[in-house]
Amino acid sequence: MSENKMTFEALHERMLKAPFHRWLGLELKELNDDGIKVAVKWREEFVVNAERGYTHGGILATVIDIAADYALAAKLGRPVPTIDIRVDYHRPAKGNLIVEARPIRLGAAFCTAEAEVYDESEKLVASGRGVYASGN
Amino acid sequence: MSENKMTFEALHERMLKAPFHRWLGLELKELNDDGIKVAVKWREEFVVNAERGYTHGGILATVIDIAADYALAAKLGRPVPTIDIRVDYHRPAKGNLIVEARPIRLGAAFCTAEAEVYDESEKLVASGRGVYASGN
Amino acid sequence: MSENKMTFEALHERMLKAPFHRWLGLELKELNDDGIKVAVKWREEFVVNAERGYTHGGILATVIDIAADYALAAKLGRPVPTIDIRVDYHRPAKGNLIVEARPIRLGAAFCTAEAEVYDESEKLVASGRGVYASGN
Amino acid sequence: MSENKMTFEALHERMLKAPFHRWLGLELKELNDDGIKVAVKWREEFVVNAERGYTHGGILATVIDIAADYALAAKLGRPVPTIDIRVDYHRPAKGNLIVEARPIRLGAAFCTAEAEVYDESEKLVASGRGVYASGN
Repeated sequence: MSENKMTFEALHERMLKAPFHRWLGLELKELNDDGIKVAVKWREEFVVNAERGYTHGGILATVIDIAADYALAAKLGRPVPTIDIRVDYHRPAKGNLIVEARPIRLGAAFCTAEAEVYDESEKLVASGRGVYASGN
Repeated sequence: MSENKMTFEALHERMLKAPFHRWLGLELKELNDDGIKVAVKWREEFVVNAERGYTHGGILATVIDIAADYALAAKLGRPVPTIDIRVDYHRPAKGNLIVEARPIRLGAAFCTAEAEVYDESEKLVASGRGVYASGN
Repeated sequence: MSENKMTFEALHERMLKAPFHRWLGLELKELNDDGIKVAVKWREEFVVNAERGYTHGGILATVIDIAADYALAAKLGRPVPTIDIRVDYHRPAKGNLIVEARPIRLGAAFCTAEAEVYDESEKLVASGRGVYASGN
Repeated sequence: MSENKMTFEALHERMLKAPFHRWLGLELKELNDDGIKVAVKWREEFVVNAERGYTHGGILATVIDIAADYALAAKLGRPVPTIDIRVDYHRPAKGNLIVEARPIRLGAAFCTAEAEVYDESEKLVASGRGVYASGN
């Protein structure tokens, strides 16, 4: 993969400019040449099933979209608009989460990136992919 | 399409059992034989771009998933787990939203449903589809 | 939707320039302001299950991609490269097929279109959607 | 990942039972614990753009679906029906192709698998994922 155009600090700061990202409690944990890791701190509003405490699939789709976008941002110098996303749900999710994301393809007009969501026991709970508009 | 197994009141009440659905400010507006309409009340935490006030794509993906699921719930008698979703983003979204959803296919093991998100000027801002596990 | 930029004859002729489209036996049946209809003539190489005579899902994905692309071509004046497709399989498919397709969104950089595949008894066998690169 | 339930020979033989797979010229090249590799021999009917010799995206979607399905078949003992597929196109494809596929999640009711398509210069030309019905 190509070199990063953003430092860890710049990427983290950029990520937290969005009010929704702050509400989600996102924290950039790692940036390397291959991609990023983002922590998502559980909050009770995330819950879809109050008895079991499962996190809503919409939260999982959201953090996949964000992590994939910021894996691209590291390479492009800025986050870029999402064209579409696809998300597969593998297991019910509970508690804090870790999202790992990486670019698949960097193009002048369109980029593709993918991400996986893991729970605290390192089980894969969801995974997905987005296509992003990298043209002006 | 087959008959509805849930009344408007039962579907609305079921939808609001989920803490995340209450945080999203969802309101069932219509239930007919073809599908449902759900209103989403804007809140400032939804915002991705503070200067322009755009709603985050994760919120749009979430309400597509929920509306598609509850369009199936009306036919099946209960919401069912999402297997996967696909979302296309068409335009930046602002303010309150309306989501329209309908079943595409009702199966014993798997169901498909789709949804569109409109803003207050009735512009299509996003659309998508989910596959849901209707088996036990 | 906007006006068509290609006549029925021009669109049909353009569609049959591709060797794979000719092998598939495609025939443009209808072009109107909302979209197109394409007929697919069954051939025995399509079959995945020799005992039951079911058509392969790859053929269904292919004709969804083509019909969605040519529904856009009618509006844009030319077919455009596919960025991604998503296909849902609803029922086993047999025999000749009809594909209906229409644009969802026409944009300067990318366009979205969707299509459904029906069998000869007018049952929906598959449906899907593609995103296409309409920029230069 | 779990153990394979099919040998290389049994999987290859099963793959070639489908008339469409034979037409595609598929050849199983590798089966290990993580997944499979399948070779696709170019034929002139694959072509979408006669001047440039590009292979049709429908062929790429097809071989992604098949390779993902047979990566699951190795674990399950049989190929299983596709529920949906998602395919991203990264570069124009020419000539013979190699498809690599692996299971993402094995479940009692549904399974997820992914695949990538490479050309002879080992460039990634397309990638995608399918969800498959593993219940009876």
